[in-house]
Amino acid sequence: MNFDINKALEILEQTPHTLDSFLGNLSQDWINNNEGRETWSPFDVMGHLIHGEKTDWIDRLNKTLSTNDKHFVPFDRFAQFEDSKGKTLRNLLDEFKQLREKNLSYLKSLNLTESDLAQTGIHPEFGEVTAKQLLATWVTHDLGHIAQIARVLAKQYTEEVGPWTAYISILNN
Amino acid sequence: MNFDINKALEILEQTPHTLDSFLGNLSQDWINNNEGRETWSPFDVMGHLIHGEKTDWIDRLNKTLSTNDKHFVPFDRFAQFEDSKGKTLRNLLDEFKQLREKNLSYLKSLNLTESDLAQTGIHPEFGEVTAKQLLATWVTHDLGHIAQIARVLAKQYTEEVGPWTAYISILNN
Repeated sequence: MNFDINKALEILEQTPHTLDSFLGNLSQDWINNNEGRETWSPFDVMGHLIHGEKTDWIDRLNKTLSTNDKHFVPFDRFAQFEDSKGKTLRNLLDEFKQLREKNLSYLKSLNLTESDLAQTGIHPEFGEVTAKQLLATWVTHDLGHIAQIARVLAKQYTEEVGPWTAYISILNN
Repeated sequence: MNFDINKALEILEQTPHTLDSFLGNLSQDWINNNEGRETWSPFDVMGHLIHGEKTDWIDRLNKTLSTNDKHFVPFDRFAQFEDSKGKTLRNLLDEFKQLREKNLSYLKSLNLTESDLAQTGIHPEFGEVTAKQLLATWVTHDLGHIAQIARVLAKQYTEEVGPWTAYISILNN
């Protein structure tokens, strides 16, 4: 598919609702278990998504559209461990929903044209990237973390499925 | 995590709602595109999940609990291509929700004990498997297909993310 802002919005708008349906009624061990040392639990992933809403996507979009400061701030992939302290998963689901709504409302208000989408910013590693690439990445980043959460949950039952591990490929990723 | 019927139910109960949030408002190309030849679209996956509800999980559970017919029927992994013809995604989401509710209501009515969960059936490839392994597999099968749908959706933007493909690992699976 070619990038289309309205189709990108379809995905970006569903994510908070999907995550709420997916995680909102699960008990603590589903939410807090991870895949082993230095991996993330669904709770950690929610904190990471919140950090992106606060510091990353819109700030970077503004930099692609800006005429002076084009340099993206490197993303802190560990900020959530501090930021999520003392919060419940319900807090995180609600906070993510509010931040995402606010950010998409801002994005829609920009009424981006094809020419805006071709504007560029400077990524700390990749160099020049376009607004369109940034927005497409926001979409796939959501989807990647939904898949990650599904995998982390599934792996809690790796032992319990017995011989079926051979058929359930998510357990072998 | 050790298998626990109530915790397994938490996952099995959320799946129809998660899929509805995830897919219910997406346009046709998100729903119908796949990962290339002989791969499944989100629409195909929904049909596959419905076929499992109709023919597989509960029938196999009953066979583990039965005292005579213990042999599982092989699962038809292509039935959905015929069964889903002429249906909309909305039809499939609703049908899946209804079938899952009925199946979980039956499962709960069995009030399975640890001794029931240790009962066995004969899988066409693996041989003897327990009711507990079957139910744990049902859980991970849901999660595997949620992850698959996220991956299929993400891959539609593989080209559009530009250099970010390196960071979005779901695009390289």
